[in-house]
Order: sequence, then C-alpha cells, then structure tokens
Amino acid sequence: MTSTDPTNSGTTHINAPAGVPFITIVREFDAPVDALYHAYTDPDLVARWLGPRRYTLTIREWDLRSGGTWSYAHTVPGEDAFYGFHGSFHSVDPGKRIVQTFEFEGAPGHVSLESATFEPVGDRSRVVVHSVYQSLEARDAMISSGMEGGVTEGYEQLDDILAEQGA
Amino acid sequence: MTSTDPTNSGTTHINAPAGVPFITIVREFDAPVDALYHAYTDPDLVARWLGPRRYTLTIREWDLRSGGTWSYAHTVPGEDAFYGFHGSFHSVDPGKRIVQTFEFEGAPGHVSLESATFEPVGDRSRVVVHSVYQSLEARDAMISSGMEGGVTEGYEQLDDILAEQGA
Repeated sequence: MTSTDPTNSGTTHINAPAGVPFITIVREFDAPVDALYHAYTDPDLVARWLGPRRYTLTIREWDLRSGGTWSYAHTVPGEDAFYGFHGSFHSVDPGKRIVQTFEFEGAPGHVSLESATFEPVGDRSRVVVHSVYQSLEARDAMISSGMEGGVTEGYEQLDDILAEQGA
Repeated sequence: MTSTDPTNSGTTHINAPAGVPFITIVREFDAPVDALYHAYTDPDLVARWLGPRRYTLTIREWDLRSGGTWSYAHTVPGEDAFYGFHGSFHSVDPGKRIVQTFEFEGAPGHVSLESATFEPVGDRSRVVVHSVYQSLEARDAMISSGMEGGVTEGYEQLDDILAEQGA
C-alpha cells in the first residue's frame, strides 16, 4: 500500500491471514484524522454509519473511556431481525487508538479483542482495525458471516458523513 | 489428561502452541468448584495467592461484574520493583467463567484477552485459562518473561488457601 496515494481512499482492505486468528481492516478517508476520529466515536454519528446500509443502529450504551462499556443493536426496518453487540472499552487514547472487547449476542461467549488505530496520511487519514479471536474457528465464522459487506458499506456511509461535514 | 486422576492435582500445565498467539493453562485443585471460584475471585484472597511467592500483591481496583474493571500491582518487599496490571471484566458468569482484558503496564498498549473457565471434576475442580494475544511476538514475550514460574507458584499458594479453608 502506498500511503500517500489518494486513489486508495474508498477501498476497504480486509485481511484474514491463514493459520492465525486475526482480522485486519485498513481503510483510508479523505478527511483529517481528527474529523475521522470524531465521526468514528461520536455515538450520534456512529448510529448513522456503522454496519450495513439497510440496518438501523440503536446505541444502547456508549461510555467512551478506558474501562467504560458499549452496547448497540442492529435492526432491519419492517423485519423481526435483531442483532445485539456489546463489550468493554479497555483503553481509549483520544484521536489515536481504542482497544475494546466485542461480543455478538447471537454467538454468546465468543469474545474478540479489537484495536482501532487512527493515523494521519498527510491531510487525509487511515484507520487500522486489528481483531483477535479466541480460536481460528471463531475468526473463520466471523468472516463467513458476511461481515465484509457490512464493514465496506459502513465505511461508505462514513465517507458520506465526512463529506457532508466538509471535513 | 485423565480428568479423574487425583495425582494430576498440583501440576500446572502451560501450553503455548507454535504459530498461534495463545497460551492455555490447565490446573486442577483438591477443592470443590465453588470453593475454587471463591478463592479465585475474592480480592482479599487473590491478594494472598496471585503471582510469585516473593511478591506482594496490592489490589488497586476490583469490580468483579460484566463491564467492571480491575487493577493490581506487584511489589517486592525491600526493593524498588513495581509491576502494575489492569483491565476490564468483559463478562462474569459467577462460578463458571470470566472473560477479561489484561495489560501489563510495563509494556503499555499490549493487551490480551483472557478467559478463565471453572469446571467440577467430581468433588474436585479445574480451571482452564485461555489467553489470546494481539501478535505472536506479544505471546512469545509473555512466555519469555518467566510467567510460568509466577503462575505455578501462585497456584501453589492457592492450594494452601484452599487447604486452610478446609475446602
């Protein structure tokens, strides 16, 4: 990846290397890192971008501090679907890095540890999300769940918010 | 492992498999699972057993509930040494399982995710601790730190507490 190539914006790179229980996501944005971090962490904005387009996100809890907790749910308008998620913020280094746990309530007891690192790329920015699973099987199940589409669509919605804010 | 063999008590099995960032610890105790869980989680008792014999453990914070946080420090009487640790309790299922994050403050930013599962073995019990690291290098560094001796000695001190309590 050439970190100064503006044509890299808008492409979500998802890597699930063979044999190790990791998923790494790299995404660049046409916005300064402070604007990216704000849109990434403000619960009113998170509710507008995180997850697949056709889902509605309801933030149930959002205590963004080291030792705080978070919880949200995806629903699909007009359908019975309900997908809950929750976890703890292990550490929050504002503007730079968040380390948190993650559990999908549809697979209770399977927990992952996720770090999101925010980096300036000139006047643009990049987020690197590194997730670690408790087993290779759990990592593979996450990939098989179709998370790739949801992540990609979510970041496209985040692009729209950043553009709208003139970031 | 033959789970009903009483001669297996007192041996701490630590497994760090090649190529995956895991450490798994299995230890059996001559005490019922409820007594083990109590001694494993009561902060006054934890302060007496966790870590190497020559260290003194000071519990700084211990909020044992899903979403709570914990923090403690090891010191060595008469020396300047200070080793701090902290994390979040992602989930606490009393008597059965705890999932928590773990960070050694001497290597800030390196976080692991640890699950401790408590199982009855007849009228004895077993704990299985499965830790997941953010990289193979971080897992290997933990093994190289000499954690094996501290874990083994800690569980021997836990044996003593369980015997003293007539568990």
